Amino acid sequence: MSTPDTTRTSPTADEQQARVEETLIRNVLRSFGDCEDPRLKQLMQSLVTYLHAFIRDVRLTEEEWNIAIEFLTAVGHITDDRRQEFILLSDVLGVSMQTINVNNTAYKNATEATVFGPFFVDDAPEIPNGGDISGGATGQPCWVEGTVTDTDGNPIPGARIEVWEADEDGFYDVQYDDNRVAGRAHLYSDENGNYSFWGLTPTPYPIPHDGPVGKMLEATGRSPMRASHLHFMVTAPEKRTLVTHIFVTGDDLLKYDTVFGVKQSLIKDFTEQPAGTPTPDGRDLGDTTWARTRFNIALAPANI
Amino acid sequence: MSTPDTTRTSPTADEQQARVEETLIRNVLRSFGDCEDPRLKQLMQSLVTYLHAFIRDVRLTEEEWNIAIEFLTAVGHITDDRRQEFILLSDVLGVSMQTINVNNTAYKNATEATVFGPFFVDDAPEIPNGGDISGGATGQPCWVEGTVTDTDGNPIPGARIEVWEADEDGFYDVQYDDNRVAGRAHLYSDENGNYSFWGLTPTPYPIPHDGPVGKMLEATGRSPMRASHLHFMVTAPEKRTLVTHIFVTGDDLLKYDTVFGVKQSLIKDFTEQPAGTPTPDGRDLGDTTWARTRFNIALAPANI
Repeated sequence: MSTPDTTRTSPTADEQQARVEETLIRNVLRSFGDCEDPRLKQLMQSLVTYLHAFIRDVRLTEEEWNIAIEFLTAVGHITDDRRQEFILLSDVLGVSMQTINVNNTAYKNATEATVFGPFFVDDAPEIPNGGDISGGATGQPCWVEGTVTDTDGNPIPGARIEVWEADEDGFYDVQYDDNRVAGRAHLYSDENGNYSFWGLTPTPYPIPHDGPVGKMLEATGRSPMRASHLHFMVTAPEKRTLVTHIFVTGDDLLKYDTVFGVKQSLIKDFTEQPAGTPTPDGRDLGDTTWARTRFNIALAPANI
Repeated sequence: MSTPDTTRTSPTADEQQARVEETLIRNVLRSFGDCEDPRLKQLMQSLVTYLHAFIRDVRLTEEEWNIAIEFLTAVGHITDDRRQEFILLSDVLGVSMQTINVNNTAYKNATEATVFGPFFVDDAPEIPNGGDISGGATGQPCWVEGTVTDTDGNPIPGARIEVWEADEDGFYDVQYDDNRVAGRAHLYSDENGNYSFWGLTPTPYPIPHDGPVGKMLEATGRSPMRASHLHFMVTAPEKRTLVTHIFVTGDDLLKYDTVFGVKQSLIKDFTEQPAGTPTPDGRDLGDTTWARTRFNIALAPANI
């Protein structure tokens, strides 16, 4: 039999502490109570709920908070018209990919989406089917072809296909010192939904890792490498816009893609052709090898 | 009696979707698996867990994600040596206050902490006890006095007391166009733990709201106003550093302080004195009213 604990001075220390922390959350939630936009209200209230849960869960120290402020400041300061470090940060935390997942819900055989990445540029040049997107970017020539259909297999003529990729050294044109456009273009599927172009066989490359995001990857023992890939954005009337890449069968980095973009259905065979193999369009590539791949694209309806 | 549902083509659509989202989280968590610093690993894994929960919970749209990226970019770009918009953002989300709470746990009668704010400056001038911190900043003169003790009531001589505040127009010196120092100083408690100085009676002011954080407050129907307050940071050997403010009894904004800094124990009477009332130190204030307040400070031990 135990005696009553009369020495108990503060069963309250922890309780008092919990009360202080919970009162604060209630006050923060209430501060958004007058928001007239119900969606914005929901977003802000949910955001602060999770942020506060994080802080309480890890018992964030003030020093760690300071480091976080300095980190975000550095991310902001390195960001300019040509470099978007916040998108990189979102990418390496899987935030971009999760947002893509949430907005591109599974629908029949619709082609899966993946991350947009920071290297898309509006107004890339138009090329005809069979044209070349490289614009002088170096790498192994690669014939890419496919068909754009709806999810019932009906061809979609006139779909706008934006394609962009890095050169064999792993750089996009926007990372060059000059302003030249290379490794990007747009084209349209033909009357049968078919498209084709010459690009470059994708090679792996690191995301820009000379900034704060690169430092974070290094500090956490992560590689900055992306699996080899070729970007697509495909739009057609009344269809859900598809932002995706194709990846290369056999690439060692498929498992460690630093932005979590890889999906099984997006891994394609890029078949190398010995030098001298006749090209699909009769182009003379001289004494070089080339590769070819096929990527059939099925677009989901808009507003599903 | 119902017939078996043989037309059921995808009990899997939602399940498939959940699987895609959960697989991603597992991959993101695993990517931090090799982090050699266990605390950093914990922080990153917890952060991505809560971030992904947020995205899935609100079903964040790509447009909303874009707005978030643009918002953070704007916060980064307005931030410089003199303006720290990320701290403001942290403040108005209650993130700063929650971090303070977590790190300044309740201990006996220790004075409660509150937000640091973005306006502290190192190397503010030293003044003697009874000195004036205003440095030409305008406002009603206010005599502030108190004693610094430990949590058992023993006086602490030589405690360093940093004080800073806005002028009667609501501006700190770092917001002036010139580089003058005003409304800030540091002093030391005397051999009996007592301190005193002339400051200004605090007045309410908005946080800087001409930037992205101000836009967010406006969009969500929140006021940018802070309750009237006077900042303190108090340090002494082997004591937990105290960062706090005192607030003014009767201030209408106590309930709506936009950074959630108010705590009941920090609200003090600022008693207005008619013009001509003799001052504690014999200073001649001529034909102006003045105020006085008392703030006794109890410091918790360090490392509790």
